[in-house]
Formats: sequence, C-alpha cells, structure tokens
Amino acid sequence: MKQKTVTFGEIMMRLTPERYLRFTQADRLEAVFGGGEANVAVSLAQFGMDAVFVTKLPEHELGQAAVNYLRGQGVDTRYILRGDGRLGLYYLERGAAQRPGKVIYDRKDSAFALSEWEEYDWEAILEGAGWLHVTGITPALSPQTERMTESLLKLAKEKGITVSFDPNYRQKLWSLEKAKAVTERLLPYVDVCLTGLQGNAVLGIADAAPEETAKRLVSRYGFSHVALTMRQSRSASDNGWSAMLYQDGRAYYSRQYEMHLVDRVGGGDAFAAGLIYGLQNGFDGQHAIEFAAAAGCLKHTVEGDANQITAEEAEALAAGSGDGRVQR
Amino acid sequence: MKQKTVTFGEIMMRLTPERYLRFTQADRLEAVFGGGEANVAVSLAQFGMDAVFVTKLPEHELGQAAVNYLRGQGVDTRYILRGDGRLGLYYLERGAAQRPGKVIYDRKDSAFALSEWEEYDWEAILEGAGWLHVTGITPALSPQTERMTESLLKLAKEKGITVSFDPNYRQKLWSLEKAKAVTERLLPYVDVCLTGLQGNAVLGIADAAPEETAKRLVSRYGFSHVALTMRQSRSASDNGWSAMLYQDGRAYYSRQYEMHLVDRVGGGDAFAAGLIYGLQNGFDGQHAIEFAAAAGCLKHTVEGDANQITAEEAEALAAGSGDGRVQR
Amino acid sequence: MKQKTVTFGEIMMRLTPERYLRFTQADRLEAVFGGGEANVAVSLAQFGMDAVFVTKLPEHELGQAAVNYLRGQGVDTRYILRGDGRLGLYYLERGAAQRPGKVIYDRKDSAFALSEWEEYDWEAILEGAGWLHVTGITPALSPQTERMTESLLKLAKEKGITVSFDPNYRQKLWSLEKAKAVTERLLPYVDVCLTGLQGNAVLGIADAAPEETAKRLVSRYGFSHVALTMRQSRSASDNGWSAMLYQDGRAYYSRQYEMHLVDRVGGGDAFAAGLIYGLQNGFDGQHAIEFAAAAGCLKHTVEGDANQITAEEAEALAAGSGDGRVQR
Amino acid sequence: MKQKTVTFGEIMMRLTPERYLRFTQADRLEAVFGGGEANVAVSLAQFGMDAVFVTKLPEHELGQAAVNYLRGQGVDTRYILRGDGRLGLYYLERGAAQRPGKVIYDRKDSAFALSEWEEYDWEAILEGAGWLHVTGITPALSPQTERMTESLLKLAKEKGITVSFDPNYRQKLWSLEKAKAVTERLLPYVDVCLTGLQGNAVLGIADAAPEETAKRLVSRYGFSHVALTMRQSRSASDNGWSAMLYQDGRAYYSRQYEMHLVDRVGGGDAFAAGLIYGLQNGFDGQHAIEFAAAAGCLKHTVEGDANQITAEEAEALAAGSGDGRVQR
Amino acid sequence: MKQKTVTFGEIMMRLTPERYLRFTQADRLEAVFGGGEANVAVSLAQFGMDAVFVTKLPEHELGQAAVNYLRGQGVDTRYILRGDGRLGLYYLERGAAQRPGKVIYDRKDSAFALSEWEEYDWEAILEGAGWLHVTGITPALSPQTERMTESLLKLAKEKGITVSFDPNYRQKLWSLEKAKAVTERLLPYVDVCLTGLQGNAVLGIADAAPEETAKRLVSRYGFSHVALTMRQSRSASDNGWSAMLYQDGRAYYSRQYEMHLVDRVGGGDAFAAGLIYGLQNGFDGQHAIEFAAAAGCLKHTVEGDANQITAEEAEALAAGSGDGRVQR
Amino acid sequence: MKQKTVTFGEIMMRLTPERYLRFTQADRLEAVFGGGEANVAVSLAQFGMDAVFVTKLPEHELGQAAVNYLRGQGVDTRYILRGDGRLGLYYLERGAAQRPGKVIYDRKDSAFALSEWEEYDWEAILEGAGWLHVTGITPALSPQTERMTESLLKLAKEKGITVSFDPNYRQKLWSLEKAKAVTERLLPYVDVCLTGLQGNAVLGIADAAPEETAKRLVSRYGFSHVALTMRQSRSASDNGWSAMLYQDGRAYYSRQYEMHLVDRVGGGDAFAAGLIYGLQNGFDGQHAIEFAAAAGCLKHTVEGDANQITAEEAEALAAGSGDGRVQR
Repeated sequence: MKQKTVTFGEIMMRLTPERYLRFTQADRLEAVFGGGEANVAVSLAQFGMDAVFVTKLPEHELGQAAVNYLRGQGVDTRYILRGDGRLGLYYLERGAAQRPGKVIYDRKDSAFALSEWEEYDWEAILEGAGWLHVTGITPALSPQTERMTESLLKLAKEKGITVSFDPNYRQKLWSLEKAKAVTERLLPYVDVCLTGLQGNAVLGIADAAPEETAKRLVSRYGFSHVALTMRQSRSASDNGWSAMLYQDGRAYYSRQYEMHLVDRVGGGDAFAAGLIYGLQNGFDGQHAIEFAAAAGCLKHTVEGDANQITAEEAEALAAGSGDGRVQR
Repeated sequence: MKQKTVTFGEIMMRLTPERYLRFTQADRLEAVFGGGEANVAVSLAQFGMDAVFVTKLPEHELGQAAVNYLRGQGVDTRYILRGDGRLGLYYLERGAAQRPGKVIYDRKDSAFALSEWEEYDWEAILEGAGWLHVTGITPALSPQTERMTESLLKLAKEKGITVSFDPNYRQKLWSLEKAKAVTERLLPYVDVCLTGLQGNAVLGIADAAPEETAKRLVSRYGFSHVALTMRQSRSASDNGWSAMLYQDGRAYYSRQYEMHLVDRVGGGDAFAAGLIYGLQNGFDGQHAIEFAAAAGCLKHTVEGDANQITAEEAEALAAGSGDGRVQR
Repeated sequence: MKQKTVTFGEIMMRLTPERYLRFTQADRLEAVFGGGEANVAVSLAQFGMDAVFVTKLPEHELGQAAVNYLRGQGVDTRYILRGDGRLGLYYLERGAAQRPGKVIYDRKDSAFALSEWEEYDWEAILEGAGWLHVTGITPALSPQTERMTESLLKLAKEKGITVSFDPNYRQKLWSLEKAKAVTERLLPYVDVCLTGLQGNAVLGIADAAPEETAKRLVSRYGFSHVALTMRQSRSASDNGWSAMLYQDGRAYYSRQYEMHLVDRVGGGDAFAAGLIYGLQNGFDGQHAIEFAAAAGCLKHTVEGDANQITAEEAEALAAGSGDGRVQR
Repeated sequence: MKQKTVTFGEIMMRLTPERYLRFTQADRLEAVFGGGEANVAVSLAQFGMDAVFVTKLPEHELGQAAVNYLRGQGVDTRYILRGDGRLGLYYLERGAAQRPGKVIYDRKDSAFALSEWEEYDWEAILEGAGWLHVTGITPALSPQTERMTESLLKLAKEKGITVSFDPNYRQKLWSLEKAKAVTERLLPYVDVCLTGLQGNAVLGIADAAPEETAKRLVSRYGFSHVALTMRQSRSASDNGWSAMLYQDGRAYYSRQYEMHLVDRVGGGDAFAAGLIYGLQNGFDGQHAIEFAAAAGCLKHTVEGDANQITAEEAEALAAGSGDGRVQR
Repeated sequence: MKQKTVTFGEIMMRLTPERYLRFTQADRLEAVFGGGEANVAVSLAQFGMDAVFVTKLPEHELGQAAVNYLRGQGVDTRYILRGDGRLGLYYLERGAAQRPGKVIYDRKDSAFALSEWEEYDWEAILEGAGWLHVTGITPALSPQTERMTESLLKLAKEKGITVSFDPNYRQKLWSLEKAKAVTERLLPYVDVCLTGLQGNAVLGIADAAPEETAKRLVSRYGFSHVALTMRQSRSASDNGWSAMLYQDGRAYYSRQYEMHLVDRVGGGDAFAAGLIYGLQNGFDGQHAIEFAAAAGCLKHTVEGDANQITAEEAEALAAGSGDGRVQR
Repeated sequence: MKQKTVTFGEIMMRLTPERYLRFTQADRLEAVFGGGEANVAVSLAQFGMDAVFVTKLPEHELGQAAVNYLRGQGVDTRYILRGDGRLGLYYLERGAAQRPGKVIYDRKDSAFALSEWEEYDWEAILEGAGWLHVTGITPALSPQTERMTESLLKLAKEKGITVSFDPNYRQKLWSLEKAKAVTERLLPYVDVCLTGLQGNAVLGIADAAPEETAKRLVSRYGFSHVALTMRQSRSASDNGWSAMLYQDGRAYYSRQYEMHLVDRVGGGDAFAAGLIYGLQNGFDGQHAIEFAAAAGCLKHTVEGDANQITAEEAEALAAGSGDGRVQR
C-alpha cells in the first residue's frame, strides 16, 4: 500500500514585482505561496502521491489563503495548526541577464517559527507515513524549530520512516557555523541527502567533483542515497542544469539541460520531489535521476515557488528531446 | 517666513487585493505607502507647505521605495533614519456595500517601532519648525515610540511649536485603557486636537454632540482648537461627511457631503492636513473648516492612503457645488 | 454527528470581460468557476460544513483547474468524475446602471451533460449524507441530466435525506413548458423549496405576495419549508434585497438591504447555502432567514459566482447595521 | 434607398489612468480613440447605418491604429487622409464623487488641424450622402478647420444634404467670443441643432427652459429640429439625464434617467447618433427622443468615448424599465 | 488589375493564460482571434492586398467581435455568415524552454463546422478572385466542411483561380489515415502546396530533404509551386527557421533565422501569406522565398495568431541584417 | 567637498505597449519618464551624487508627475521651470528577436523646446557645480535649445566646470549635416566625449577601431577623455556590449557582456552616468571603464529609460562574474 509522505516547514507568502521591475519600481506585487517543504508536498501531490504538509499558520484570512492554496493542489492540510502570529513573507525581485535576483526575507517571528512541539499531534501526523522530508531552512528559523526538527527526525527514525534532507543553506537566515553545527546533529537521522553541488559548504565539503562529494558524504554519514544538482549559472536568464544520484556505490548522471528561465526559485524542491517520487516508486537509479532532473528542469519554466507538472510531463521530458514543440 | 511642519510616525507598505477581491481571492496586491503622520506630511507638501516626515526605515530596497515615494511627493525626508529591522505592513481588503473593509496589521517590531530617541537629531529636526503633528498610533506601537512621543511633544512645547494631535484609537494595536492612560499624559502638550466624533472614546467623551464635545475637551485640556469630523457610515460604499471647528468659544460647521467612496482610508489625515494648512495660513474659522472638510472629502475619491490634491482643488470644492462636472 | 451535504450539477468556467467592458471590447477575460450547485457547496464548506460536489469534468487541465478550485475551497471532490467531453462555459458581461448584464451560454454537450447515471457511485456519494441540494439547471442540461436528477431525488427521498431544490428557470436553456413539466415531476421529492419571488413562474405561481406564494406551494407540494428571495432590481448597479422563510405555517421576514452591486451572479445560491446552514444547525425561523438573507446580501459584494464569506461574517451582518465600517 | 451619413472632425487617442487614479499616480494609461464626430459615426455604424468618417491622420502606426479601430466598428474609412503631422491626444482623469474629471488636451497642430480643404475629395465624400454631422469642436481646432467647416456646411446645403450640428463649446479650445462669432456664421446652414441645455451659451441663450430655448433657436436660425439634453450633474459618479426634441412647433420629452456613471465622456455624441438614427428612420417625435435619450443614457455605462450598443439595445431601454436584470 | 484573394475556414477565439502561467494557474485569459485561413487573410490585408475571409460565425456578440477584429485588420468580411451555433475556441498554454506549449481544442460543432455549402453565395464570393487559400484544418472539422472544401477547390479550379493549400495536419482533429485520404482527394485541385518539412506525413513523404520532397510532390501532384518551411525546434523558447521554394524545377532557399520566440502560433500562416503576396506580385523565386521566410520569422515576434507586419517590414528584414536595432 | 553635476535637456513621457505588443495591438500603454540628460541625473542621484536636472515642463499635472518622478529618484528639481506648452512624448514599441524596436517621437514644440535662455537662473544653477552633462538631443530640438546649449557650454567652460557631451545623433530629429554643423560648434567646450562607436558619424569618424577613433577625436578637439561603447546588436533580444575609455594617451577596455535585453533604451545614458561617477570619484582608467560598462550593462536589465541601480550593484558586476545567482 502506498504510504504518505510528510513534510514539515514554513510556507510563506512571496511577493514579487511584476515582470522585471525592481523593488523600487513596483506598485503591484504578485502573491504566491511557497517554502521548501511545502513545495515538495505540492509537487508530490501533483504526481498523485499522498502528501501531508505540516506547519502553523495565522488564524487570519491570509493564513486561510495559504491553506486554500495547498488544499487546491491536493496536499493534505488537516494537520496544519492555526493560531496567533504573523505570516512569514519574502519579497523576490526577479533577476535578468547580468542582474541577479534578490530576496528580502521578512519571516522572523512567524506563527510557525514560534510554534512548539507540543502543539502538533505527531502520532497522528506520522501514522501511515513512509517518508519524511525536511530542509535546512526549518531548523534555521528559531530555537523552537531547531529543536522540533531534531525531535521530528529522531521520531521518524524510530518509526522506521525514510528521512530525506536538503541542507539548503541560506546566509540571510543564519551563520555558516551555526548551520554546520545544527546540520551535524541532524544528519545521523537522514537516509537520503539532497543538495546542490555548489551549496554543500554546510556539509563540510567544497570543490569536490560530484561523485567524490557523494562518496565522502556516504562514508561520513551513512546515507543510503545522495542526490546532487549541478547548476551552471550562466546569467540570471540562462542556466545549465543536471543531476547525479549516488546509491549502492554507484553514480547515475542525468542528461544536461540548457534552460531559459521563467522562475528560478524552487528548482531544488522540484528535484527533491522528483527523486522522492522515483525512489518511492522503485525507479532504478538512472530512471530516478532522469525523472528528478527533468522535474527540476521543468520547474524553471513554471511561475511560482512550486512545480506545476504531472508525472507524465516529467517522464515525457526525461524520455524526450525537450524540443518544446506545441502539442496540438 | 513660512515655517516647516514636522510629523513623526510610521510609514507602512499597504497591500491591497485588486478591485473588491477578498484576501482569499487575491493573487496580486497593490502596494502603496501610508501611515497617519506620513499622509499628513504628503498632503501638506502638495498644498505647497514645507513638510518634514521623521521615521526610521529599513536599509533595504523597500525602505528606499518608501523614501522615494515621500520624496516624490515633495516631503522633506532628510531626517529619516535607515537601519536594521523590518518594514511595517498592513493588508487592506476593500469593503463594498454591506461588507466592511478589513485591515490585517503586520507592523510589529518594525524598524521604527524599535528605534530610540537618541538616534534622531531632534535639534536639527525641530529647527525652524512652527508646527508638530502626531497621531495616537505612534505611541501605540512600542514602549520606545510611547516614550519618544511624550518626549517630542514636551520638547516641541518648550520650543513654542504648535502641537496638533489626533488620538486615532486602533483597537488592534492596544487596549482602550492603555490608550487612555497614555493619551492623558500627552494631551497637556497639545494645542490643536483633531478627532472623529465617533472615535473619541479614548478622550473619555462619548455620545455628546459636536459642540458639547469640543467644549468639554477645551475645558478639560485647554486646547486652543478642537476639530471634529462627523462620518455617517451608510455602507462601505457610501458615507456622509462633515466637520466642525471649535475655536475661541465658537463652533464653525462645514457643509455636509454625501460621498461615493473610492478609498476610505486616510480621510482623517487629509482633514488634519487641511486644517493645519488653514490655521497656518490664517484662514478664519469658517474658511478653515470648509477647506479641511473639502480636503477630507476629496481624499475619499483618491486611491491610496494619502491625499493627492492641491490646495486649489480643495478650495474649489469648498467654494463650489461638488457637481463633479468634467473640466474641459 | 454532523452529516454531509451533497450537491449535484455542472460547474462551468465563467469568462468575464474586465471592468465594465462589453464583449466587443474585451481582450482579456477573467476566468472563475461557478454553477448553482457548486456555489452552494463552496459556501457551505466555508461555513465549516462537510460539502460534497458531484459532477463530471473533462480530463484536461482546465477540468483539473475546476477540481483544484473546489478542493481549495474545502469542498469534497472525491466523487467528481473525469473523462472525455468539453468543459461547460458561460460568458458574462457585467451590467451597469441601465445596461443589463448579459450571459452567453456555451455549455452544450459538456462532459457533465453527457454523463450517465451508471458512471457515478451513488451509494458511496450518499453514504452519510443528510442533505441533498439541486437546482433546476441540472435537469435542463440534457436528457441524461434530466433523468439523473429525477433518479437522484428519488433515491435521496428513499434514504431519508432532506432535499432542497431551487427551480432557477433559465430561458436560454429550455422552454417554460418543458421546465414546468420536468419540475412538476421533481417537486414531490422536495422538502425545502427555494426560489426568487419573481422567478417562480416555473412553479405555476406568479404575481402573488410572498406569504401567499409560499402557502400555495406548501399546499400543492407539501414542502416543509419555502424560502423566497425578493429582489428589487433598481438598476444593474443597485438592487434591493430581502427574503422570507415559511415553515410550520408561519412566515419569517428578513430585514431589507439596499445593495450597491459588485457581482450580481450567485446571490440565490449564497442565500440557499445560508438557509441550508441555518436549518441544519437548528436556527429558529427568524434567525435562519436573517442569516440566509445576510449571506445572500454579502455575495453581491464578492466577485465571482460563489460566496466568499464565513458564517461569522454572515452572522455579523445579520446582527449588525451593515454600515460597512473598516475593521481595524 | 438608405443614404450614407458623413461626419467630419478629429479623432484623438485618449489616454486615461487606470481606475480612479490621478494623473500623478498613473504608470499605465488606457488608450482608446475618440472625438465627437468619430463617436457619432461609430454609433451609427453599430445601428447598422452607412457611416463615413472623414479626417486626416498621421502616416505612422498610431494613425493606422485609429483607422483600424474605426474600420473594426464598421465605419467607412476610405476617405481618411494619411500624411505628416501628429496624432491629436487628450488625457482624461476620471472623476469620482465630488472630485471632477479632468481633461488635458494635447491636440494642437495635429495632422487634421493642419489639413487643407483641397486635400479632401469632397465630391466623392458627399456622393450619396443624405446627412452631414459636425460639432463645434472641428472649427475650433485651427484656422484651416474653421474655414473647412464653413465650406463643408455650405456645400452640403447646396447639395440638399441634411446638416446636424452640435455647438459643443470647449473653453480649453477657444474663447466664448470667438466661438460665438464662428458658430453664428455656421448656423444658417444647419437643419438639426443638438446641444446640452446648460452648454448653449455659445448660442446666446442661457437659463431658459428647454422648450423656450428651442423656440428661440428655431425662430432665430430656422432649424427644423432642436434637440436638447438635460443633465443634472449630481456628482462625478451620479448624473440625472433626459432630453427634449422640438419639431414642428411641438416639444417631445424623454423620460428621466438616474445614472451611476461608468464613463461620462461621449454621452452627447451617443445622443446625437440616436437622434440622427431616429430621424433618418422616420421615428415620430416621441419615439425619436426616447431612442436618442436611451442611447445617450447607455453610453454612460460603456467605457470609452464612443457608444457600444445596438439599436435593439437602445430600443429595449427606451421601451423597458431600465432595471438592469441579467439576461440569461 | 489586382485581384482579390479568398480564404475559407474557421476563426476561433484563442484563450491564453497570461505570461507563462499554466492552465491550472490562470485566472485571466488573453483573448485573440485566429485560425489558419483567417490569419492568411489578415496578413494579406496588411500587405495591402484585397483579402476576403469566408466563414460562419454565431449571431451573438462574440461572433461580432470576431467580425470587428477582421474588419479592423482590413479584411473583407461581407461574405461572413452569421447564425446559430457556437464560437470555436482553443486554449493555448505558452511553452517555455523545455516545457512545450499546449493546445486544448474546443471547436466541435461550431457555427462554421455545421454550416452548409448552400448557405454561402459562392458566385459572389469568387467573383473577381484570383487566388484561393485553404488549409487542411478546414476539411478536418466536420463532414460538412470536408464536402465544402472539395467543392470549393473544384469550383475555383473551374474558374481558373490559383489554389494554394497547406495540409497543416492536426492529430487532435482527425486521424492520419483520414487526413491522408481526404487530402489525396483535394490535391489535384491545388497549384501551390505549402507545408512544413516535418509535417508532411499527410502527403506521404517523410524524412526526405527539402528539394527531394518538393520534387516528389511536384511529380506526384503536378503542383506549380511547392514551398517548405524548415523549423528547428531547439526549445519552446528558441527555434531555427528557414524556407525553400521549388518552382520551374529549381529550388530557392531563404537564409536561416535563429528566433527567440514571442508567439509560436501562426508562423506557417504568415509564411503562406508572404509567399502568396510574393507570387501575386511577380517576385522572382529568391525574392519570393526570402520575403515569405522573413514574414514568417517576424510572426514569431508578434503576439497573437496573425501576423502584424507591413510588406515594408518583411522586405526590410529580407534585405537586412535582422540586428533588431531600435529605429529612432 | 563633493560638487554637484548639472544636466540640461528634455524629459518626456514615454508610452510603451505592454509586453511585445505592436502599436496597432495596444490598448494600454506603460508610462514612464525619460530623456538622455534626465536619465544621467537619475543614475547619478542613485549613486549618491548631487545631481541637478534643468528643464521646463508644462504647468499641468503630467508636468508635475515628471517632477515627482525626478524628485522621488533624488534628483534636485528646484531649477525646473513650469509654464505653458506641451509635454514632450515618445512612443516606444519594444522589439523582439528579428523585429526591431520602434520609436515615434511626438516632442515638437514642447514647453522645453520653446523655452528661452533668459527664463533660467543660470547663475544659481551653476553655483557649486563641478560637472555639466548634455547630449546632442538638446540642441536638436529647436532653435532655442540649439542657442541655449551653446551658451550653456560656453558659460560652463568659463566657470571651469567639466563638460561631458554625448552627440547621440537621432535622424528623426534633424539631418546629419545640420547635426554635424551644430556639434562642431559645441565640441570646443567639451572635456569628456562619450559616444557609441557605431553612432559617431556626426563626429565625422566612421568605421575606425575604438582606439583609433578616440585618438582622432582627441587630436581634433582636445578632449581630456573619450569614452566609447561598443554594441553588437545580434537581435532586438540579445546584444553584446563593452566599452573603452581613452585618457592620457591610453586606452582602457572593459570586459565584454552578452546581454539578454529587458529594456534597450538608456544604455548609453547609464554608461555616461557610470563614467561621470567614476571620473568624479577618482577611479583609475580601468576601474572607471569597468564601472561604467557594468552600469550600462545593468541598465539593459531594468525597465524604463533610466537606470535603477546603486553604485554597489555596478561595482559588484564590475568585480564579479555576472552569473546572476539569486541573492538570498
């Protein structure tokens, strides 16, 4: 029987000036909802998986809007807490060509960041769960979320739930030292480690080739799988993209994509969802990494934080040419 | 020589769903800047006055956008501090007919709320100032702003600067008891008291007629002027509106307006700016209250928090019929 | 234990030119989803009820968008069929003042209209259901839906489920004679009859006063409840609105609302949902009709086909003044 | 056989800030085309008449856009000249409630204003024409257009073409004295005089009642018909509206409309088109004025300068209640 | 004397989510009109040709909007029938990078598809015509249109009118077998065959080089001209593009364009119009194919189904560098 | 002490169809303000410089909007005249791929073009100025501006103010001969000459390599600095870009950028501002040209005529990789 996947983290409202306007030029902001773990849940639900997103949101209407969004995507929202506190926000300015995108976080003291372990009904949440996914953003938000992340990973481990983790270091949230220390405590509970090749400083490995990086991580932390994305940031408008999965002592490489970007955010989350889907559905190594890389690639062509693609679409790209011909 | 008017408070970004969409329906938010004291400064600058707005804003680009907005309106922004902290926000859902508008505040711990008296160069700020305007929102924001408001009113009084104050009670910011206690400490420094007739519970007077209300306030606090707005909220789409000025023992009533609303917010601030303009320019009582009421009325036809009208436009309405004929 | 409410009908995409543009002026169309029974389900879900909407939608992405919309609103969509066929559409041109709104239907041969009784799992759908709501639009769509409506009402009756029905005659869908004949066959299964006072020609009663109308309907068809809405269409921009509930031989009248309209469509559905909510929650007659009338009134201030209000908001209007003051 | 109607004048691009934004708040302008005589031609074409609009437009793409617009509306554009010069513009700021709309003209030295009589092929233009319509704006634009208007009216008279004229005085274009002097020269060629009751100072009659005004005009200038619109400008949002036709010594009054305005501009032109249509189609006096008044009323509910209604729609309002019920 | 060109087919409303939004993300749809033969007529009219588009459209306002659009573009619409039936639609989701564009057709049972040969006044339509253009979409729509296409080609042939045909196979409309069988019946009447090199399976030739393809077609069907477009679909955002004309036993190749796409749809129609223009105006082979290829290339930079360029613009690109410098 | 920079010229409203719509497709125009010298002032103000823009604008609200824009950007607007006359306009159609952008000027007889030397208070304007920047557009506008430009350059020279000049030839404004003759009279007063390598025909040098061009200019006119931009216009969507500074007999080349364009206009002005900033702040030759080239490059990623970047952003690009990674 298919088991549910649980993700735990913060969902924010993202506010983006229209088109390529700069923050100082904007008088209208596009509002979408996103956050690493929420994005993964949304992707999985669209692949037809049973995906549960756990968080705490303010009681007010914008908190409700976040619930409605998730619910509309097919995510199981029944364990989302509602209560006092604010909605985490982030402002995103799209980059273009040589001008990088910019993020202004305004997520401090959100309802989620201030929530406590005891508020959640963990037994119910994890009942029937086969997989748990968390990113390194969750423990970075507050002492509370740091403690909860560790407790949750531990509890999942005890229950035999597979744990995937994406360190996802954000320098605007915490220092590298702090991030390293906390991550170090979490990794022993992790089965599947996903990370961008360039962003794994928090794992203490830098500048190594993909396979070498994976080997070192496996030997150090005993991961069953390491999945790496390799992004070539040619400009804010064009990126190269590929990925590697390391399992059972062997590395599987996806093909390489050259992407003209629609929305850069959430590529890693879409990749993670693709990989979780592949591993849960028993794809072999090559199939799994091609599927995950294709899912991640397609995210870059979709507006918003979360992917909006079906499993069929990811398969079609993984199997096809990516020539983008109109389907009619 | 014309003297400058100083206002002190918070300017927020206001985020409003398009048209009459509810918060749960919005995927685009209109972004404008506003706040009681900032709105007054903007109005005065458009009337051709020398208006200084004092606040603290975050260092980031959205803080800059607020400065650019004020600067563009002709407000003197040279004393605005920049630094750490967040930008105060509020979300506004437009009301329509029987459905009331809704405000969600997200302004806690803003850069301004956490700023301290010593950060501002008060001597420079008040040099050449003839008038100071503050509302009851400023002391409501934090212990720091509560202390600063009292210090500032005291200092202004010492320097012989005319002080106008609008209690502007907001139940989502503080309790009525707390508001009353703080306001009580501030009122001795106030010369000109402006308030909505229905909103003056914080002044300890309720349900009295306008003239009687003014008399009691004058006898209790020694104000030189009391200006009251009388709003008849027929629905979220249509309001009645008039005002009264009490000075030298005499009450002056403006005419009555029936308004089809474009934007309800900031009517009181526009009125305050009109009155300050009239009093500074030596208008007689009747002229002053007609000008202020017309300025306030016109605000209800202008989108955003702050008025966008010239003194000529307010005069034209005060003197004319309000028949709204196209000018061509 | 609270029982679920089932509604059965078509959900269409509604395409509306922006603002007050005429069809011949439009180059952008606002797209929302709506349909009588879907609107009722959405309203009930927002009131916190367990609401199931049953229909058939095309397999393609726009069919999915309709499901996502309903799911996001909290409606139980698990019994919605997907398959071949087209998505029903209607084009709406907003009216203004003396210019009436216009509807162009393009819903012929939709996936729902062509669906068959055997495709649906009626036993599962009705299990745990305490209430069924259908409008006269469903049987008007095709011979299939005509047959299914009758079968469904009959089945509900057999299972002791309360049945509410709104004849909702649409001359662009079928002739009055045909409508009358079909409605006549359905009414014996109906417990609660809802209709606009002016639109009940299909019930064979015209030009009678509300109470008289209700009495005749009760005596003719044995309804337990008759609920009538009384709309005074002063113009496309302004309507009067009130309602009457007739139960146990007594008429309860709501207060009268004068509404400046944001969106005219779906007022009757919002009223129906309000009444169903009130009756299911044991409101007394006066409370039920005030709640339902307030819910219907608020719909006219909300864009789209379906209401977007909570039970608290309807209660607040039912109990309050409707003065539309900003809540801050 | 139905004869064509010729109108001669300037068509401008009208640039309007979105919603109710003031000029100083706008960063997007809605662009439509309009001008008194063009509006009349567009209305007539929609009524199914053969309508010719004559003007000169710049060679560039925006001149082409104006042609495309007219052509799309069914207006005969074959006599429109193209050449050097600029496109006339006007900026319109929508009024709301007590705030009047504002027009900024930027039409000086347009291609049309600088065009000369000899450039047009008048014989071809007037061949088969039964009616000529011009407003007082055309002669106000330049010495060239002043001369051409007189020549054209004279030529039409010689050819036995019915001439209608709307003085349409605009103080931003010329002085009252100049307007009076020129109008005085034109009126002898006019058969049908249309004007707003309040705007006929240019005709030397002020403050007279409608019938009296018409009588004086007829006796002074020998018009066969005088048609007056009576607007009560209650505010920029709400107007009263009715009209009177005086012919054969008798006055026919339309019913009175209370209009909530969508777009105030072009009401007089829509009325003129309605009247021309009625008179050309042999409507009796009462029918003609009701049709024209209804057409004018409906224009106030339509965005843009020109009406967008069919003859059936005007008839329906003239005959109906104006209750604005949705047609479905 | 220049003779008119007649095209016969369906014009649909195309509904496209804004920007790169997916169908499931859209709440606003951009509405334009398009269809193969209509696009060709629009292009020709903009080149200054006399172009007639023949179809049947619904009586309602959206049918009128389609007529207005065509008329505005300068197309002769006098032979367009109006009557019962629906407006054909298609939904287009823009592709981006590796994500292909998607089309959902909703054109079944349109007024055109259900129209009959006898409804059209073919003698009047073809009087003065020198060229007829049809695509393979027209016969694919219904048995009626299949029959009419054959009749029309036959009639044109009899009248000595040059016939151009673009097979334009759409798998969502009919099967390849059916398409082949019908096309086979039509080709004997065709003089000029236009097709995409990759899309000519319906002609029974696949995987041959351009010149070889053309030769085979000529030898098999006796075409006077074969024109092929060669598209390299590198992604949904970037395409290569060139074309070849085969006439009098000789092949003429255009230069190669690398295009960053604005709107992929209608490139073939724009090319067809370019070729028809060139051949009608006696361009030599090289000139004709360069002009047509340039026209087709420019279409990819223009939003909507139909090209919006003048003959001068196509000539400028055919003759120039395509360096896209601003013209100022 | 830092000295102010003065620029003198026209600021226009620029009206641009949305997205890539052609002029004939637009019904909404984006409105921004721009003009060569104004753009330079805006850039400098954002770099933290004291920048004064001198012009004359109409008294009306759109003139005020231009002032507000400049003021908001931090430009010193106190010397801007207001008075009769029109606002200069230009219409911009964005190019895409092989389709070039198009400009329609409508700036004749603007308030600025008709203004006279005596209206400006030159002594006050130039007091404290260390730098003056003008482009060749200013003298091209009218005989008045031609005379004023010469007078101003002469006066600046007398006062020892550094003069920078960008010939910026526009064929739609004047003939090459006229431009050459006037420019020849102005160059003796110029210290720093900035120009596009391809656009310097007006300087009488064509087709020379950058360094050779600079040498000839220096030897002919005695410039202290020559700065050249080298643009490779690959298409309207993609350009190459680099620059060279020649000073003290030595050429400094920036690195080469490949840019995917957001907004092509104003690249030269942004470069000029970058160079003026670098030279005023004592950057060495290589630093100055890298900074200026980076500033110019970034402009191509920013919507509107003027750059919206800080000095830090230009430095970051000049020093970094331009890989456009999101900053979070």
